[in-house]
Amino acid sequence: MDEICVNVKRLEENEEQCTHEDKTDPDTVEEKLISSNERSWKPWQQSRSRIRECVLYVKKVLVSFASMEWYCYALLGIITALMSFFMDMTVAKLLNAHQWLYGCLKGHHLLQFLCWTLYPACLCALSTGFAHSICPFSAGSGVPEARAILLGMDMPDYLSLSNLFAKLFGLICTLASGSTVFLGKVGPFVHLSIMVGAFMNRLHVSCRGGKQRAAKGEMLVVASAVGVASCFGAPVSGVLFSIEVMGTHYSVRDYCPCFFAAVCGAITFRLLSVCSRDQETIQALFKTSFSNDLPYQPFEIFIFALLGLFCSTLSCIYLFLHRWALRFVKTNKPISRFLATEKALYSAIVAFLLACFTFYHSAGHFIAAELTMKQLLTSLLDGNCWYTVSQNASVLPEPQNTFWLAWNPSGRSYFQTLGMFITAKVGLLVVACTLPLPAGYFMPVFVYGAAVGRLVGEGSAYLLSDGISSTKSLINPGGYALAGAAAFSGAVTHTLSPALLALEMTGQCSHAVPALVATLVSNAVARAKHRPSFYDGLSLIKQLPHLPSLIRACPKLANVQIKRFVVPAGAVLKRTETLTSVQHILNDSTDSEVPVVDSHDSPILLGTINKAQLRECLQEHRNEGSCKQLEEVCSIQPVRLHLTPESTVKQAHCIMSVTGEQRLFITENGRLCGVITWKEVI
Amino acid sequence: MDEICVNVKRLEENEEQCTHEDKTDPDTVEEKLISSNERSWKPWQQSRSRIRECVLYVKKVLVSFASMEWYCYALLGIITALMSFFMDMTVAKLLNAHQWLYGCLKGHHLLQFLCWTLYPACLCALSTGFAHSICPFSAGSGVPEARAILLGMDMPDYLSLSNLFAKLFGLICTLASGSTVFLGKVGPFVHLSIMVGAFMNRLHVSCRGGKQRAAKGEMLVVASAVGVASCFGAPVSGVLFSIEVMGTHYSVRDYCPCFFAAVCGAITFRLLSVCSRDQETIQALFKTSFSNDLPYQPFEIFIFALLGLFCSTLSCIYLFLHRWALRFVKTNKPISRFLATEKALYSAIVAFLLACFTFYHSAGHFIAAELTMKQLLTSLLDGNCWYTVSQNASVLPEPQNTFWLAWNPSGRSYFQTLGMFITAKVGLLVVACTLPLPAGYFMPVFVYGAAVGRLVGEGSAYLLSDGISSTKSLINPGGYALAGAAAFSGAVTHTLSPALLALEMTGQCSHAVPALVATLVSNAVARAKHRPSFYDGLSLIKQLPHLPSLIRACPKLANVQIKRFVVPAGAVLKRTETLTSVQHILNDSTDSEVPVVDSHDSPILLGTINKAQLRECLQEHRNEGSCKQLEEVCSIQPVRLHLTPESTVKQAHCIMSVTGEQRLFITENGRLCGVITWKEVI
Repeated sequence: MDEICVNVKRLEENEEQCTHEDKTDPDTVEEKLISSNERSWKPWQQSRSRIRECVLYVKKVLVSFASMEWYCYALLGIITALMSFFMDMTVAKLLNAHQWLYGCLKGHHLLQFLCWTLYPACLCALSTGFAHSICPFSAGSGVPEARAILLGMDMPDYLSLSNLFAKLFGLICTLASGSTVFLGKVGPFVHLSIMVGAFMNRLHVSCRGGKQRAAKGEMLVVASAVGVASCFGAPVSGVLFSIEVMGTHYSVRDYCPCFFAAVCGAITFRLLSVCSRDQETIQALFKTSFSNDLPYQPFEIFIFALLGLFCSTLSCIYLFLHRWALRFVKTNKPISRFLATEKALYSAIVAFLLACFTFYHSAGHFIAAELTMKQLLTSLLDGNCWYTVSQNASVLPEPQNTFWLAWNPSGRSYFQTLGMFITAKVGLLVVACTLPLPAGYFMPVFVYGAAVGRLVGEGSAYLLSDGISSTKSLINPGGYALAGAAAFSGAVTHTLSPALLALEMTGQCSHAVPALVATLVSNAVARAKHRPSFYDGLSLIKQLPHLPSLIRACPKLANVQIKRFVVPAGAVLKRTETLTSVQHILNDSTDSEVPVVDSHDSPILLGTINKAQLRECLQEHRNEGSCKQLEEVCSIQPVRLHLTPESTVKQAHCIMSVTGEQRLFITENGRLCGVITWKEVI
Repeated sequence: MDEICVNVKRLEENEEQCTHEDKTDPDTVEEKLISSNERSWKPWQQSRSRIRECVLYVKKVLVSFASMEWYCYALLGIITALMSFFMDMTVAKLLNAHQWLYGCLKGHHLLQFLCWTLYPACLCALSTGFAHSICPFSAGSGVPEARAILLGMDMPDYLSLSNLFAKLFGLICTLASGSTVFLGKVGPFVHLSIMVGAFMNRLHVSCRGGKQRAAKGEMLVVASAVGVASCFGAPVSGVLFSIEVMGTHYSVRDYCPCFFAAVCGAITFRLLSVCSRDQETIQALFKTSFSNDLPYQPFEIFIFALLGLFCSTLSCIYLFLHRWALRFVKTNKPISRFLATEKALYSAIVAFLLACFTFYHSAGHFIAAELTMKQLLTSLLDGNCWYTVSQNASVLPEPQNTFWLAWNPSGRSYFQTLGMFITAKVGLLVVACTLPLPAGYFMPVFVYGAAVGRLVGEGSAYLLSDGISSTKSLINPGGYALAGAAAFSGAVTHTLSPALLALEMTGQCSHAVPALVATLVSNAVARAKHRPSFYDGLSLIKQLPHLPSLIRACPKLANVQIKRFVVPAGAVLKRTETLTSVQHILNDSTDSEVPVVDSHDSPILLGTINKAQLRECLQEHRNEGSCKQLEEVCSIQPVRLHLTPESTVKQAHCIMSVTGEQRLFITENGRLCGVITWKEVI
């Protein structure tokens, strides 16, 4: 990858020269280039130069339509969608293999037990071991880290190529362990997409000859949108996610690129499934077929609002348990000592225990554990009312009858199964969240919310089935499952985009208002009293530098003045500095820009000098004697933005994330007091 | 309205006192309030005080659930939706009256002609006359002005109560003149909603006792989302519109309020139509019933992209003609002189001419002019393929048969009618846009785009009807109409939210990808080469201070340094100023804050002093003699943000719109050079 980058860079540098010298004949320039390359002792010079010409021509044609970054956005969408599709395909094959093996062993309970438990245990151990041996940063969801990166923090470890592969492979293993471990793919996928975005950014920078540093943040914001969009084929919710993930200010300039890349990703993802004969045409991922004539009665809006309230209460319990479990794992000495050395073994043991619980002949029978996550979601979003189905279940078509039997096993009603599912899954989810492997926590929460919604919907359908005699149509519990999924996942993550996601995943525009109402209500309750969201909790426990979540945990922080975080500016030059002393200071300093002040006694900030430029100046004037003063040989760049020590942390953060500056100078009455960088802001 | 505000303010001031003195018993405070009020000589003291107690109690209960601003958001949504609904109802009644009269006069061609032409002419004259006599700022769409206001400009004329009434009444008259004049309601409605938002903001400020100035911008951004949402019952596209309209940076803090208020508005708007028995339940405004099994073939994506290209070409022609027409009206001496004095007469004449053209027995026969805008859109979005319908049109149900006959009059095919419609309507639209009355230009463009899409869709259906033998389902031209409407209106306004709007208005999630693809393609072409959008063009012609559109017209402007716009800082205080001279300076200055410098010779900026605070200080120290120096009696507030003269216009604009400051100090080497305010930035 890096080699390709370097090659492309070299090519594009040549290209840059071409465009710079566009008054001269381009052919002569090319010839010059070729002749200069002929001097090198590499093989296949003829064909290489021909290929180079072709590449240059193609690039010229492409750039005449749109600037290079748009191709990068499209490529980002396509690559992410390809990754998403092939990951889904691999996971489906692994899951099928497990189900086939389990089916083959019918009748042998012990063998079935071993198959059910050891398969996910091995996969989880593999995932953890692989992820931690390749890149220890690849464990977890990645969304908290992505949020910190998008806010401007520099975290190269989280964007490395090794992290990408570790995360990709680990995630496939995690997903293949199925509904036993019950983990999802969205979070890591957003992280993966951001890594691809970072590579695209490098490609783009090298395409422009590396001269003009392109806005890195822009590409990463686009990548976060693409991550969600190509995971579910849902472009609009991807864009909304990218807005919400930013936390403070969203640059409207990113809006069009986000939509463009998200649509590219979504189309590619859906077209691939058409090509692989999964679907006849481009359709929603979990397509539902609700009755379209009368989606819901107006009074049901109140039930949806109550559902939102119920979901938010459950989400508070879940978040509390989750934080408690994470803290317990971290502070409990035996476990933390065990985790420090034997991560893979820990994963295997936890996965084994989870599998023991969900085995059909133990508790799995009671919580529909034999369904995969996809089947769970499909069955919960089913447009038929189970109350009606229970009258004549035998007429159901094949897949729906399987789901129906899982939810309605002999001897118990679907209410009991749903209730058990909701009660037991909280604990299982919290335990699964402590696993140190690459995994997403959004999809499990989404499915859980759908179960809560289904329960409420089936309950209302049961209670109101005879009550409303004036209208023919019954209540549709599928709509409640949709709204419940949106509300619960929205409450857990403190976002509104799940409402759109639920609509786009099911292709049901008719339930837009109920889903939004439930999500708004659940968000309102979940956000009250500065409760941290799921991601905030992770950020705090991982001690990530993410200011909005710190502020949510401690609202007073926003108004703290930056006075106490200001650090001395390091190397500072005087206006009248002689060139020899400049040289000394230059060697000590590590920053790329050096501030220049009037004099050391009255350090009025005049501006900055770029270090590279300063070096050039020094080279030029080396022979003219060292008595010359700094201001005579170099032009001082004025500093465009000063802050005073009385500015608050929030202001500094806001200005730094909007302008994208890495360092701000703090002046008091025009005198330089120090600088503030991202590290101190955090 | 103002009286209510004052009353509420007084109440809330009392309330503020209560909360401030919450250590004392609240009852005694209330008693004190009542007794202090008994001294006044107003009637019904007993009942008034009881009502006041009730109001206070209700407020206390409300505030215990959520802060006051959320009630303001909800109220904003509800009020706007009520306005929207009752406007629609009035317009529908007026249109029905016109149609009834026209129907009664069947057989009398002259009378029919007079009825067809004079009704819209009178209404347009009334609209123009009323709008211009009450508030001359109420003419036009209002979106360009709204964009400038949202970017931080202070334009109180555009937010006045008289403007609200003039716009409301004028808009009803404009809409009632029907498809002859062919103007819409979205733009003015966004403006109306922003006016309501400004009032809500005042209410909110007075609720908090006027002490803490609430963020005005926040309420207005929310209002812009509500405007779109309650116009069509489409909350998500409302929020996207509010993001796009901001132009530079969108504060993510506004995101939740936007969604909340938009959902409130949309639900109220749709529930009202349920209450008035228009609809059985909450449904999309222009509900379609496309076949859900196979919405479109994958290869059709290319046709949708081509449709986007076609729409963007047409939009360029339309925008060029529109700008030309506006400039012509402004520069042509006889017309501009006539317009300056006889606006109402001009409107009447133009409307009469338009009506003459669209009369059934002249050209109206060829362009389906007898359909209203709503009927046009419904017929164009029809899910049935007209090619299939043409085989047996007699079996169509009543309303659809009417539409069918309008598009397919005896002797001509629907292709001819659609072609004529598209050709003629460009001219009619451009002429209608010169009318100086409150009117929206989005809906006509949307309908026009739907017609373009329908033409392309019917064309493809006709060409491919026999070609694809492998699949049973034919191409659905309704989907093309949807995508065409989104693409054309997106290209004209340079926005992407129309794609979402088209989906939400029709309730068709299945066509999300085609609509987005067409809109993205059309936007890409329309935005190329810095072409101004519809709103940019209006901003430029009206000379509105909207920087993003100025930059689009002249890209060099972004990098101009603010040096040349800096104005002297006006009244400046010295640190050692005596109190008597402070008094003199205070009387001369008009700003609310006065900068303080070290000395006039070396004007190093120390900070600012609030004028009100300074007055208090002066009052306090009046007796202590006038020899005291300023710094001894007053605390100087430090200035948190300095810019240097080398900052670019874009930077200053960006920082000012993000921080919401109205004035920035410009310092050079710590010395105050001047200030820059919004006026200079523009």
